[in-house]
Amino acid sequence: MLINELKNHIGKEVTIAGWVNVRRDHGKLIFFDLRDRSGTVQVVALPNHAEAHNVAVESRAEWVLEVKGIVNSRPEKMVNKDEVNGTIELEALEVRVCAAAKELPFEQSAELNLDTYLDYLPLTLRTPRSRAIFKVQATIITAFREFLMRHGFTEFQSPKLIGEDAEGGANTFNVEYFGTTAHLGTSPQLYKQVMVGVFERVFSTGNVYRAEKHSTSRHLNEYTSLDFEMGFITDHTDVMNMENGFLQCMAKRLRETCAAEFSLLASEIPVVPEKIPTLKLREAQKIIKAEYGVDCTEEPDLEPQHERWLCEYAAKKFDSDFIFITHYPLAKRPFYTMEDDADPGYAKGFDLLFRGVEITTGAQRIHDYDTLVAALERKGLDPQKFSFYLQAFKYGMPPHGGIGLGLERLTAKLLGLENVKEATLFPRDLNRIDILLSK
Amino acid sequence: MLINELKNHIGKEVTIAGWVNVRRDHGKLIFFDLRDRSGTVQVVALPNHAEAHNVAVESRAEWVLEVKGIVNSRPEKMVNKDEVNGTIELEALEVRVCAAAKELPFEQSAELNLDTYLDYLPLTLRTPRSRAIFKVQATIITAFREFLMRHGFTEFQSPKLIGEDAEGGANTFNVEYFGTTAHLGTSPQLYKQVMVGVFERVFSTGNVYRAEKHSTSRHLNEYTSLDFEMGFITDHTDVMNMENGFLQCMAKRLRETCAAEFSLLASEIPVVPEKIPTLKLREAQKIIKAEYGVDCTEEPDLEPQHERWLCEYAAKKFDSDFIFITHYPLAKRPFYTMEDDADPGYAKGFDLLFRGVEITTGAQRIHDYDTLVAALERKGLDPQKFSFYLQAFKYGMPPHGGIGLGLERLTAKLLGLENVKEATLFPRDLNRIDILLSK
Repeated sequence: MLINELKNHIGKEVTIAGWVNVRRDHGKLIFFDLRDRSGTVQVVALPNHAEAHNVAVESRAEWVLEVKGIVNSRPEKMVNKDEVNGTIELEALEVRVCAAAKELPFEQSAELNLDTYLDYLPLTLRTPRSRAIFKVQATIITAFREFLMRHGFTEFQSPKLIGEDAEGGANTFNVEYFGTTAHLGTSPQLYKQVMVGVFERVFSTGNVYRAEKHSTSRHLNEYTSLDFEMGFITDHTDVMNMENGFLQCMAKRLRETCAAEFSLLASEIPVVPEKIPTLKLREAQKIIKAEYGVDCTEEPDLEPQHERWLCEYAAKKFDSDFIFITHYPLAKRPFYTMEDDADPGYAKGFDLLFRGVEITTGAQRIHDYDTLVAALERKGLDPQKFSFYLQAFKYGMPPHGGIGLGLERLTAKLLGLENVKEATLFPRDLNRIDILLSK
Repeated sequence: MLINELKNHIGKEVTIAGWVNVRRDHGKLIFFDLRDRSGTVQVVALPNHAEAHNVAVESRAEWVLEVKGIVNSRPEKMVNKDEVNGTIELEALEVRVCAAAKELPFEQSAELNLDTYLDYLPLTLRTPRSRAIFKVQATIITAFREFLMRHGFTEFQSPKLIGEDAEGGANTFNVEYFGTTAHLGTSPQLYKQVMVGVFERVFSTGNVYRAEKHSTSRHLNEYTSLDFEMGFITDHTDVMNMENGFLQCMAKRLRETCAAEFSLLASEIPVVPEKIPTLKLREAQKIIKAEYGVDCTEEPDLEPQHERWLCEYAAKKFDSDFIFITHYPLAKRPFYTMEDDADPGYAKGFDLLFRGVEITTGAQRIHDYDTLVAALERKGLDPQKFSFYLQAFKYGMPPHGGIGLGLERLTAKLLGLENVKEATLFPRDLNRIDILLSK
């Protein structure tokens, strides 16, 4: 039986199994909290059930036990209304050890620095805090897929091993591939555009790789990218509306299933506006100048501080945790980005800022073959190296666009985590793949 | 409007958009089939709508068009009951070119050899056959996730960049990683066991890598692995039952949503028995000897021909496309496999055979720390290299087990495809990453 079902079985004999969370030895009475995937309950071992009592005396934190017992209402003065099972306890009749555990290197409730936390992930991921983070993360990715499937999108499996490092932009990792060098994909971008030709609306969820040497609180060398791409759009605003819809769906689902997790992390599930406010980059820069006294109007992009200011402004002015910034200079965007004919030199693209950082980049893409070849050449790229990808455009592609969204960064910002590594199960960086590389 | 909605709008003016599938020029009358993600419809351009007619004259296969027109019932003698929209056609009033296409290198309906098919994937993936294959694939992976979530499993994102090539079994790809060498994961196995300590029941769906040099019809160098792992099991049969349940759920969903796709591929959705028949390896080998006259009773594993025979036998004897083979010699299974105390030297593990090939390997795993360290040593592996993973066991792990299932191989066998590359969107092999590597 799962622990969260116990309160419907008061007075009954039941069997549960899980990990010892906390153990308190009150001489003859031994109390311990047992944890399974559904929750936690207090177990009491009395001396009159001698065998059960003996095992309880011996057991320690993280031991795995199976407990047969009777569900009792707690005495009035022992009731804890703030706990899920605060009105009941389980009186142990039989206790079986499924697995003992060695002595823990620190208390489960200890505050750890990030490096110690990462050194002991198989243990530290078991804390309520970590479990809350990764339950929220699983909920986000499920909402992403379900929302898109409801809107006619088809999932596809994008390859991660790529041939030519054709774009040459972000640093890519090299892979020894049967005597040649392959690379790890930095994004499923080119494949999802190809797939628009097949299914019109597609999405993928998978790992991407950036061989960036800096180790900051918001960069990862391997992360999960949520990507969608849709055909037959009017312009980039169709893509923004689809993302807006996903975020509303996600927030609704988080409210339904993860309220306790947000409460534990002391963070708020955002209210996603019907229509997320939108500014052109140049408008945003003028606002920064007027509101914060810093002139960045000549810059082609936003600095982290500018992003924080704009989010502060959006919260104050529009009561929104989200703000779209559109129309970055075309020169700063990837080759496949569509120019806005009504605003020459600027892209039909956008970033989405949320609680101080950019969480999404999206755009309408070029769909005309000749325009795309010219765009490659203008960036100094060799169309020959893109011949496979270019076939999609040679043989008819509709207007289309899409977004990429980093799952870990979104999880971190939603939950107010300082470092994106806390929202990554097994983070890889310059110094660490599970264990420190220098070890 | 989507094309599959047209038949509810007979006599009405509508606008659709899609690709020209087939075009037939009957002098003054131009017919073409327009294809979108929902289906196909015949469009007729009459000379009295001159502008629309002119565009129709000019257009060719794979041009992307937006067509405004009137939905008409077809004349009695033109009705084709076998087509979804066989009773209607769209009379074009206005036709707008979203994108022209260059002349195709071959007819869309041409039979291609595998290499040509792969050379032109951005085009060849658009055929009804390819679209059917990858719609089925998307349905399988969705069924996998939904079934497991309904049974209390939590999704997790498994890393693919791994440090030490600790197991040293299957060939792994090397990655240059900031001055050291990392590897591409051959399976999420060790991580999903760690995650059993966190969420008890977990699953992941993602790419895995095998640097195998042979290029056969059933091997891939990059494929999608569907993995689950569950805690608090009695033995490996709990894992087999869970997989059995998933397969039933998958088959049900395929019958509901992919009947047309199976019909197109001339394959049958399997009936999954309530309880898939099970044989121990030694029993299976005796049956092979008795039924097929080949003595393999001394061998530690099954050859491909043996797997085909056993599937033939299961179909005949048990009326099942599936058969579990259990109790392989422990020496042939990975170090973490649990031995069956009741059958010493043999594993509490299984393969699942389906239509002639193995599609799953699963087992109960060792959960006791000391037993696991001894098992590593017995295989000549260095426990020190597994120290991160071993923490999970040091700090309490319940009895657990799980499976790994190759998505592409399952798709191929379900649809009766000869080569697993046909069930892989962008297959990577010894000679090819999108384009031939020798080019």
